[in-house]
Amino acid sequence: MSTQFASAHAVTIARFEQIRARTEQICRPLEPEDTVVQPIVDVSPPKWHMGHTTWFFENFVLKPYLQNYKLFHPHYSYLFNSYYNSVGNRVQRDKRSTLTRPPLQDIYNYRAHVNEHVAILLQNLPDKQIAEILPILELGLQHEQQHQELLITDIKYILSTNPLMPAYFSKTNPKTPQTSATLAPAFADVPGGVYEIGYKGNEFCFDNELGVHKVLLEDFQIMNQLVTNGEYLEFMQDGGYSDFRHWLDEGFALVNTEKLQAPLYWVEQEGEWHRFSMHGLEKVDKNAPVCHISFYEANAYASWAGKRLLTEFEWEAASQVHKPGNGNFVETEFLEPVAAAPTAEVQQLYGDVWEWTYSAYHPYPGFSKAPGALGEYNGKFMLNQMVLRGGSCATPESHIRTTYRNFFHPDKRWQYNGIRLAK
Amino acid sequence: MSTQFASAHAVTIARFEQIRARTEQICRPLEPEDTVVQPIVDVSPPKWHMGHTTWFFENFVLKPYLQNYKLFHPHYSYLFNSYYNSVGNRVQRDKRSTLTRPPLQDIYNYRAHVNEHVAILLQNLPDKQIAEILPILELGLQHEQQHQELLITDIKYILSTNPLMPAYFSKTNPKTPQTSATLAPAFADVPGGVYEIGYKGNEFCFDNELGVHKVLLEDFQIMNQLVTNGEYLEFMQDGGYSDFRHWLDEGFALVNTEKLQAPLYWVEQEGEWHRFSMHGLEKVDKNAPVCHISFYEANAYASWAGKRLLTEFEWEAASQVHKPGNGNFVETEFLEPVAAAPTAEVQQLYGDVWEWTYSAYHPYPGFSKAPGALGEYNGKFMLNQMVLRGGSCATPESHIRTTYRNFFHPDKRWQYNGIRLAK
Amino acid sequence: MSTQFASAHAVTIARFEQIRARTEQICRPLEPEDTVVQPIVDVSPPKWHMGHTTWFFENFVLKPYLQNYKLFHPHYSYLFNSYYNSVGNRVQRDKRSTLTRPPLQDIYNYRAHVNEHVAILLQNLPDKQIAEILPILELGLQHEQQHQELLITDIKYILSTNPLMPAYFSKTNPKTPQTSATLAPAFADVPGGVYEIGYKGNEFCFDNELGVHKVLLEDFQIMNQLVTNGEYLEFMQDGGYSDFRHWLDEGFALVNTEKLQAPLYWVEQEGEWHRFSMHGLEKVDKNAPVCHISFYEANAYASWAGKRLLTEFEWEAASQVHKPGNGNFVETEFLEPVAAAPTAEVQQLYGDVWEWTYSAYHPYPGFSKAPGALGEYNGKFMLNQMVLRGGSCATPESHIRTTYRNFFHPDKRWQYNGIRLAK
Amino acid sequence: MSTQFASAHAVTIARFEQIRARTEQICRPLEPEDTVVQPIVDVSPPKWHMGHTTWFFENFVLKPYLQNYKLFHPHYSYLFNSYYNSVGNRVQRDKRSTLTRPPLQDIYNYRAHVNEHVAILLQNLPDKQIAEILPILELGLQHEQQHQELLITDIKYILSTNPLMPAYFSKTNPKTPQTSATLAPAFADVPGGVYEIGYKGNEFCFDNELGVHKVLLEDFQIMNQLVTNGEYLEFMQDGGYSDFRHWLDEGFALVNTEKLQAPLYWVEQEGEWHRFSMHGLEKVDKNAPVCHISFYEANAYASWAGKRLLTEFEWEAASQVHKPGNGNFVETEFLEPVAAAPTAEVQQLYGDVWEWTYSAYHPYPGFSKAPGALGEYNGKFMLNQMVLRGGSCATPESHIRTTYRNFFHPDKRWQYNGIRLAK
Repeated sequence: MSTQFASAHAVTIARFEQIRARTEQICRPLEPEDTVVQPIVDVSPPKWHMGHTTWFFENFVLKPYLQNYKLFHPHYSYLFNSYYNSVGNRVQRDKRSTLTRPPLQDIYNYRAHVNEHVAILLQNLPDKQIAEILPILELGLQHEQQHQELLITDIKYILSTNPLMPAYFSKTNPKTPQTSATLAPAFADVPGGVYEIGYKGNEFCFDNELGVHKVLLEDFQIMNQLVTNGEYLEFMQDGGYSDFRHWLDEGFALVNTEKLQAPLYWVEQEGEWHRFSMHGLEKVDKNAPVCHISFYEANAYASWAGKRLLTEFEWEAASQVHKPGNGNFVETEFLEPVAAAPTAEVQQLYGDVWEWTYSAYHPYPGFSKAPGALGEYNGKFMLNQMVLRGGSCATPESHIRTTYRNFFHPDKRWQYNGIRLAK
Repeated sequence: MSTQFASAHAVTIARFEQIRARTEQICRPLEPEDTVVQPIVDVSPPKWHMGHTTWFFENFVLKPYLQNYKLFHPHYSYLFNSYYNSVGNRVQRDKRSTLTRPPLQDIYNYRAHVNEHVAILLQNLPDKQIAEILPILELGLQHEQQHQELLITDIKYILSTNPLMPAYFSKTNPKTPQTSATLAPAFADVPGGVYEIGYKGNEFCFDNELGVHKVLLEDFQIMNQLVTNGEYLEFMQDGGYSDFRHWLDEGFALVNTEKLQAPLYWVEQEGEWHRFSMHGLEKVDKNAPVCHISFYEANAYASWAGKRLLTEFEWEAASQVHKPGNGNFVETEFLEPVAAAPTAEVQQLYGDVWEWTYSAYHPYPGFSKAPGALGEYNGKFMLNQMVLRGGSCATPESHIRTTYRNFFHPDKRWQYNGIRLAK
Repeated sequence: MSTQFASAHAVTIARFEQIRARTEQICRPLEPEDTVVQPIVDVSPPKWHMGHTTWFFENFVLKPYLQNYKLFHPHYSYLFNSYYNSVGNRVQRDKRSTLTRPPLQDIYNYRAHVNEHVAILLQNLPDKQIAEILPILELGLQHEQQHQELLITDIKYILSTNPLMPAYFSKTNPKTPQTSATLAPAFADVPGGVYEIGYKGNEFCFDNELGVHKVLLEDFQIMNQLVTNGEYLEFMQDGGYSDFRHWLDEGFALVNTEKLQAPLYWVEQEGEWHRFSMHGLEKVDKNAPVCHISFYEANAYASWAGKRLLTEFEWEAASQVHKPGNGNFVETEFLEPVAAAPTAEVQQLYGDVWEWTYSAYHPYPGFSKAPGALGEYNGKFMLNQMVLRGGSCATPESHIRTTYRNFFHPDKRWQYNGIRLAK
Repeated sequence: MSTQFASAHAVTIARFEQIRARTEQICRPLEPEDTVVQPIVDVSPPKWHMGHTTWFFENFVLKPYLQNYKLFHPHYSYLFNSYYNSVGNRVQRDKRSTLTRPPLQDIYNYRAHVNEHVAILLQNLPDKQIAEILPILELGLQHEQQHQELLITDIKYILSTNPLMPAYFSKTNPKTPQTSATLAPAFADVPGGVYEIGYKGNEFCFDNELGVHKVLLEDFQIMNQLVTNGEYLEFMQDGGYSDFRHWLDEGFALVNTEKLQAPLYWVEQEGEWHRFSMHGLEKVDKNAPVCHISFYEANAYASWAGKRLLTEFEWEAASQVHKPGNGNFVETEFLEPVAAAPTAEVQQLYGDVWEWTYSAYHPYPGFSKAPGALGEYNGKFMLNQMVLRGGSCATPESHIRTTYRNFFHPDKRWQYNGIRLAK
């Protein structure tokens, strides 16, 4: 290896080890049985997440690049491929709870085995291959960070369906956010004009951020903070869930068939609203941002408040114009959104909760898929989903960007998703 | 009535009568039993369409504006309200086939009754009210034209599910399109720049066309004609339906669960593709535009062809730049798309088939719902649907505009929907 | 034809004409649209019943026995075969509402055509064939009588699902039962011993009645009349539908998922129970037998009353021992069960309502299917259904026998089914 | 305690300890993740079985009879109640996989805690209470034996759905049956006459065996052995699964919708039939009894063979007349049925596989439910299920009797169910 690559290298190895270890740290408070169930199809077993992120490195890095690499197990590709048709058959997405075997320890062994071999590969890599491998490695790490966020939201969902509602933090000592004065609600200006959208830097970005293009926006204003639980309660108490005028038609149908009347995880007990959190069931904090709501609920709230949601282009423009303000990422280890302190004109553009935008997740002009299997990473999901921006309390701070596009179907509620208003 | 309104008036009455009569003409070839069934939830019974369009005038025009108007029947509002929560309870959408009564003749009587009373209202209207009523009346007529198109597509579907596959034109003498030389496929330029999107004229438009705004587009090119059945057959024969690389993920799942391998209404018989048309089962015409496909199929075809679909903004810009070319509307009474004659640089921008765009049906900036029940007309459907542009062989020519936005869920195939490519 | 067969012959032809005409009489009050819908899979369109019963004669009598007989229409076998795998493909049972064509008049023409040709066949039949054909003809007539009962129950269901709840008797002049003193409830003895079960006469019976065999019964008692609406109301008012102790597990699950709280067709209006009958919505008659209940409801009522249902063997023994008493059949044209007059020790063993027994519909010892397609008549349904005995107000009096076994799944409620208690 | 009860007592305690320990022995080869999943609603998580059988003793024995007994955990009744409405709310049957907590070790602690307290209770019991408690204790042990059989069949199903198809016996040393000459197929006579059905001894029996009554049977014959895999293969190869003539209608519908073509667990590999067994995937043994089939398959096979199934009354009469012959119970620890050795005139009346009878699971004459919660044990399931007789290779030998009635819905295949023919 030339010295030119040596330091990038050391950084990469350290980063690889740190991110891989973090996944295991997230799973540490779990019982083995917690790691295998799949209460809804959206929620994958933690064991599967751990296997799948490892398979990603084995399949896309070790198999093609490490000479004489022997697969850890001949069937693991079948078990841990998520959705890559190019790579072959796989366990159906809704059948992941069948993976009672391999037992948990085998998964940890698999992780260790792949980690060791990636280290071996990196230490012996000729310069020429480094340039080819590093981007795939980086994609693998970014991919693992995405699964870390999913692990947290999936674990929360799994624990919530257990009749005992156990706390994630029951064994560990949770960090408690410092409470503080909150911001007075106000709107901040974003001037109209032509903005450049999409990623144009030299660091890593996902393919869905590429296709830099200009959009023409008119003047608009954004709320300086996220909608809080207290504000959302007013909407609920004003009959928001039963007033069809605020709802998209399919959202109102969902509210009625599912009998929705509050965010996910909220439970009314003796006239007071509680919510299941990583600390177990606790009273709703009125100052904290509202969370675990669908796009339909976000949009109905905005309609009730006489405001609207941003588009993803407006969001990106606003974050070019305004300083990011404080925000709470996974590194705080709170794993719940907290009230914003008044430290900037616009707060929590990043962190705490993903912000639903009224933009469909479509390709940017000029979008093109990567060749081969990695071309299936993002492009094939570009329909029927809505874009979210800004990251959440379950997102690694190093993972988020101004141009980052998250996306979920509008009815999904198990992610840390919330509301920012515009007008 | 002042003379100022008299002529507008006469035109309105004539137009009212003509459009109302057209609905009944469409239903004339049907047996009474054809008018009551609902083979899938999307397809409403023709009898219901005839009642519902009449209820629209009774409820929004006669009831509020004609003094002493007595409802034709106290329960018809319950029977024929489609989706207006503001107006009250109604037959569930998927239960419309329960309307075996009122018998067909009662529906015709209802139509005649409402027609007469609208005429009475119009003849005795003070000037002041004319300005208030005419827009609602116009909306009612535009609404009825929309249902005329739905009537045609729903009748086609109903007949297709009958094991005897009867032809719509079995009793009447169908008009046959004149065959002609077709256009050589080529791309036409549309220059980039700022375009104004949305309706700014003084005639009627729907609320979803309002909110005129500017968009910035880059240079692009559109195909000078629609994709033909012959071209689509090449895609099929090239294994298009089984090659996941061309498909959006949810589209490919649909193809597999529904075992799709051709457009709706296509049937292979002795090695040759036929399709059910308004003339019964007949061989596929390779020169005619492909039709009755989902957005997923349109997009997969475009991917296979190495091209892409337009956005709705590109489509609107292209139709500002290019002459419309010939197109086949409901007035020809062909009721099937036909091959394009080479009469303009870009053909069939309007008519023949609706063109799927890769734009979600969302509100334009500044969109606001009308007050009251009519505010439920469009806004509440602005999610999870894709925009189609240009009208079809089942659309009245007077009904379509450059700014007209049609919308369907991406899996829907029973409308006359097709493909125009861009690059 | 020999004189030996001549009179049997004349009787047969008269009977054939009378029964065939009766089917059409039942359908006369219907609108064409009433004849095509299928609101639940159990309920077949009346048009289909009329076609199917005709197809039975065409397929099993005319096709094999009338020389040079030309099928009325080449596709009708596909349209009107019910469940005979031996005869070939057919419209799926749940797709019968697709039969908007052939139009109603064609069905009447089909009936007339087949009737004429059966008459021709019978008039020119050599003695040798008469012996072969008469049993099939008789089966066809019995089959048509079964469908007449289904026509009545299906029409009632179809009308009940219409939001206008139209009365079947709205056009015709319904016959009203004479009200009368009712019987005092009491139990009647049936002595234990060996009884012979099954049909051993020389007239027609279905194959499921064959396999005469002896059963050994202990002494038991049967209620001298059917359970009335008034008695059933007491069960309802005593919380019968919410007290799990009276219910079979699957019945109680059904009660909860379907939110059942009264017999089918019962509606509470301003604190009073009404029911949809052939006369439209009317107050519940407390003296009339309760009807349109599932086996689960019958059994729960019996449990609540501290009694039990009979087995089919006990029912058959009781009707060997006791005189039948009065009963109300289809010939009265009431089409609803009525209160019993005190004319015999045990009333309504026949007529008014079918009596649910606690016997599964299984083959008798020695049961064997007929050879060929007619072997599919009964045998293949001998599982998961419960036996009912005695006929109802929709059953032709000439159709019922002591040994007659009707059968339905225990959750079915749209037939005229009721309760007789035993202890 | 009087000496009169002392020895019965010692036996009971020993029996209690032995049966309780056996449950844990069955679960020993499992990973913790194996114990929590519920791949189909019929299959309960092993952890749940272990908790539920323990709850039975805690709720019905300790809570009412042991003074000052403190529940192990206040929520366990909610977690581990199966279906007793009288006892209160409970986890829905299809949500048992939510029980990731309590972790497996807690369940073992729960078992130990209840075992200890039952021992304490028994050691200090006054004579008067012994008579009251012993029957409940015995019911609890019989109940636990039933769950031991379910544990085995549920574990087999869970392992079979795992993509790795792990063997249950992978860690332990399985016992292998000694192969031997098999019996020549022949029919054995059972003379007609009056037989007494039901339990009349002084030992334990379930309430569904009570109501001793006489039935009158005609002469019949039973096959001297069970239908083998080899014989069943002939049925398969003769097109048995596609010949509608042999099938009950609902069975043939199931075969077609589920695309059944072999018993559960059979897999064709390279032209040869294998089956998943407790030893993993292995070739089908043609001499062993066919197993894991539905009632529909059993009945279709009998029809194809020109024979029939027995009724439960015939089975009980046959086992009064014939010696039981050898049979393979859970004590052999084979956990798969094996070929019969020629040691008696009629083989395997007991053990190896449960024999489907053509008798619905209904109450015997005079059946009455026990008072209180235990009345829900059997009675409420007496509909829509078929009786099976004789026990299987997963049944404890001490658990089975001539009068024992097992019951399952006719479509169930995951139990060790097979076929004996009669004529």
